[in-house]
Amino acid sequence: MPPSDAEATLLAANQAFYDAFEARDLEAMAALWEHSERATCTHPGWPALRGWPAVAMSWKAILGGPRPEQFILTDVAAHVGGDTGWVTLDENLVGGASTVSAVNLFVRAGDARRMVAHHASPELRG
Amino acid sequence: MPPSDAEATLLAANQAFYDAFEARDLEAMAALWEHSERATCTHPGWPALRGWPAVAMSWKAILGGPRPEQFILTDVAAHVGGDTGWVTLDENLVGGASTVSAVNLFVRAGDARRMVAHHASPELRG
Repeated sequence: MPPSDAEATLLAANQAFYDAFEARDLEAMAALWEHSERATCTHPGWPALRGWPAVAMSWKAILGGPRPEQFILTDVAAHVGGDTGWVTLDENLVGGASTVSAVNLFVRAGDARRMVAHHASPELRG
Repeated sequence: MPPSDAEATLLAANQAFYDAFEARDLEAMAALWEHSERATCTHPGWPALRGWPAVAMSWKAILGGPRPEQFILTDVAAHVGGDTGWVTLDENLVGGASTVSAVNLFVRAGDARRMVAHHASPELRG
């Protein structure tokens, strides 16, 4: 089944997130997040970061870090529930040791979709 | 600010999830999930489980396991976006080694709320 228009919009927002991540484009990353108290981000193995200021600081550190990341995304599934949408997927990091399971949550802001939650965690083997 | 009615309903659904978990009540756990292909669950350190059959199997194994879990939930925040709602929180397992960051996603089904995604991951220290 091809994605609906709403799912396609959501998938585009999700792709913009990984594009900004790979390009280490802090400005693009900041533009796609909701700058609110409810913005929440759990990076792999990290504690939850709550509120846009804490989330923004983490992206500054990660995108400014020594090693750019490259993702192969698999099992990408987008779901729309009114003005809220979520995408579940696996992030396969090129050169990385393990697959990262992620859920990305977006809310509508006019014609745009803004990320309001990102939760990613590595599969722990053994 | 006290929670709105919609937030209170969402918080009750979220509490029902942890009540079923602690009580190892597989029937209650099954009743609160959406039995659909889009149901997704990532247990701490696990790969993502996609679709209700796989999610159900995991709860059967976890709730039938040797050790009951007891949670102290902190930083519980509920957010409503139309018929979809999400709760972010920390699961502090009594006797557990680390804090688990979680996001729980619910969709409206008549007057009820059904869990459609649960993603939990441990904070990795060091």
